[in-house]
Amino acid sequence: MGMTMTQKILAAHAGLQEVKAGQLIQADLDMVLGNDITGPVAIEEFNRVGCKDVFHKEKIALVPDHFTPNKDIKSAELAKRLREFAKKYDIKHYFEIGQMGIEHALLPEKGLVVPGDVVIGADSHTCTYGALGAFSTGIGSTDMAAGMATGKAWFKIPEAIKFELTGTLGEWVSGKDVILHIIGKIGVEGALYKSMEFTGAGVAALSIDDRFAMANMAIEAGAKNGIFEVDEITLQYVKEHSTKPYKVYHADSDAVYSEVYHIDLSEIQPTVAFPHLPENTRSIDTVGEVTIDQVVIGSCTNGRIEDMRAAAKIFEGKQVHPNVRAIIFPATQKIYLQAMEEGLLKIFIEAGAVVSTPTCGPCLGGHMGILAKGERAVATTNRNFVGRMGHPESEVYLASPAVAAASAITGKISSPKEVMGC
Amino acid sequence: MGMTMTQKILAAHAGLQEVKAGQLIQADLDMVLGNDITGPVAIEEFNRVGCKDVFHKEKIALVPDHFTPNKDIKSAELAKRLREFAKKYDIKHYFEIGQMGIEHALLPEKGLVVPGDVVIGADSHTCTYGALGAFSTGIGSTDMAAGMATGKAWFKIPEAIKFELTGTLGEWVSGKDVILHIIGKIGVEGALYKSMEFTGAGVAALSIDDRFAMANMAIEAGAKNGIFEVDEITLQYVKEHSTKPYKVYHADSDAVYSEVYHIDLSEIQPTVAFPHLPENTRSIDTVGEVTIDQVVIGSCTNGRIEDMRAAAKIFEGKQVHPNVRAIIFPATQKIYLQAMEEGLLKIFIEAGAVVSTPTCGPCLGGHMGILAKGERAVATTNRNFVGRMGHPESEVYLASPAVAAASAITGKISSPKEVMGC
Repeated sequence: MGMTMTQKILAAHAGLQEVKAGQLIQADLDMVLGNDITGPVAIEEFNRVGCKDVFHKEKIALVPDHFTPNKDIKSAELAKRLREFAKKYDIKHYFEIGQMGIEHALLPEKGLVVPGDVVIGADSHTCTYGALGAFSTGIGSTDMAAGMATGKAWFKIPEAIKFELTGTLGEWVSGKDVILHIIGKIGVEGALYKSMEFTGAGVAALSIDDRFAMANMAIEAGAKNGIFEVDEITLQYVKEHSTKPYKVYHADSDAVYSEVYHIDLSEIQPTVAFPHLPENTRSIDTVGEVTIDQVVIGSCTNGRIEDMRAAAKIFEGKQVHPNVRAIIFPATQKIYLQAMEEGLLKIFIEAGAVVSTPTCGPCLGGHMGILAKGERAVATTNRNFVGRMGHPESEVYLASPAVAAASAITGKISSPKEVMGC
Repeated sequence: MGMTMTQKILAAHAGLQEVKAGQLIQADLDMVLGNDITGPVAIEEFNRVGCKDVFHKEKIALVPDHFTPNKDIKSAELAKRLREFAKKYDIKHYFEIGQMGIEHALLPEKGLVVPGDVVIGADSHTCTYGALGAFSTGIGSTDMAAGMATGKAWFKIPEAIKFELTGTLGEWVSGKDVILHIIGKIGVEGALYKSMEFTGAGVAALSIDDRFAMANMAIEAGAKNGIFEVDEITLQYVKEHSTKPYKVYHADSDAVYSEVYHIDLSEIQPTVAFPHLPENTRSIDTVGEVTIDQVVIGSCTNGRIEDMRAAAKIFEGKQVHPNVRAIIFPATQKIYLQAMEEGLLKIFIEAGAVVSTPTCGPCLGGHMGILAKGERAVATTNRNFVGRMGHPESEVYLASPAVAAASAITGKISSPKEVMGC
């Protein structure tokens, strides 16, 4: 029986010729990731069980990105524990403030994830790297501790849903709209413990940043992982960012899928997920009148250079609505620098937005843009659960950078077309 | 009997020909300032006593700068109260995130303070505006509430200390070094409830940004206010920033001073205030070996364009020490933009520093760079009290932007000359 992309990667990392859905396997890990929230918990566990060393100094990445620059004493202590652990075990891929970025944008940028890798990270959006044809998934801090010690992790081989993409995206439509559309269609448990495998002629029409945004939100449909067929665009990205050896896995032609969806990209509209679930989607022409208080553009979902460009295209020559705070977070220092060199940051500042140093910040209600009672935000982040960005009675509307920027200008959820007059 | 600059300003605002030290007077206010910490307390008081309106919609400035972008739900609620009050009373000078900056850099930049003004602000560093020849001083939230309601405040006329400046500053020496030197000399209570009046031929050798940094820290010597003799440099600044009418007050030739200090600017060295008081100063050649964990460049003291330039001159082509987090806060959006256009932000990012959106942030242990137990920071801020930037067992060393930048490169408190090899 044929295997899916995910199954083939896991089989190879378990030293098996074949695996099937439901089977328990132990796989070798190419990368183990932790941040300033989950890392310290994993470190405590690592120490508690008496581990003497990490399995590989170059296969662990520690990124203090959630509450940094340190928001308070507690977060400062967490970041310190991460830093001290990295020093003690000489962990190569520890990224200090200033060298840093949001983990899921940073690891691919630094070339630490390539096609065919198996990656675990103590952060639910670790699934992002599926954009590069890697198997990557979020795990808990205990698994992270075990991963750091042994370089291995247990997995139950997932079933898969195939998303056969065709067509090309319309103007002002991005990967974010596609994944919101899909989650709206299948629901937040629509891919529970399954792989979401993106394939078909439409993949070629999606930029690597579109793919990162889509794979990133696989977890919001409950998926174990999201993964894209590797193509020239992937390989070009890998070539530009990494020197690591990689391996491309294709699904077998007789691979078994629990479901197959055909998605015509040209039919997808800018899409917004209303509170309080990513599945509560509406196309932009049906959102109605929703006034807002804040716009957040950034995060591991949409803080990449294309996201900055899309937002800047809208902001250029316009002013943020006086009732709106617009906060922009380039996801990494490199993206920040590039956005500056392309003149995008200037456009943001001149429009009346603020540009933050990279941090996960407001996405998780961490810092740098927390909502008060009754406030509403349009955010390019990935979750709009109750209280996610602050007060339990605040609201988050998930959207693309273009929709978020357009909404910042008008003060209500708006279509980029409406703002751009085209 | 002659009057000092401060006494003359206060007399004029009290409608009196003459005042003398110790006299209680009620003065008309040209500006009443509050922020996201003190403003909401003043608003509560304003409402509690049943005030129906503010005294003047254009003579109140509300700046949410301390915990913004909102660090948590509590700070979001505070910022919201400030915003709603500003809307309710149609307060012209409310500055939203994105239009904002650190209050004491923002008000002069926006032309809201000019020579001869009387300004109160519910923030201790309101004394900053003395750089422009205004009388300005920090008050409590209750006085702010009364000021917003009546446009008046009671003052006890202060005695004054005269600082007769001569000479010019050496290379890598700035106004920050001068004021640290002075506080080191007279102590943190050296000017208790007195005016620090800066005058003499040396004033002309100080840029307006040097003067802002010096007046800003008058409170750190316990002063009621710090004030500079107005000269061409002041008037040039005022002309470029304001359309408000102004009046220049000179001290009478027979004005009485409790003390007179003669300061030769050319003798001042880069100066560092050791924990835990601004008076614990040492010249840079006597600091010894002090390794550091963080460098903060910014704040209402040293977040202006000249500060950015001085830091960039040091950072250019160098790398932040791997043990150091370097965090740079341009004080206003305008300074941020200018620093970007001058290529300074690029230098910071390429050196491995991060650039934050304007906020008071770490200076007061607010957010964006809080210290863990045992950590040390060199900061261009104004206070190094126990726990000021985080954990009670952390340490803050106050210095100029040049010293802070040099220290970021070496990982220990260092002289700019040492780093620049000149």
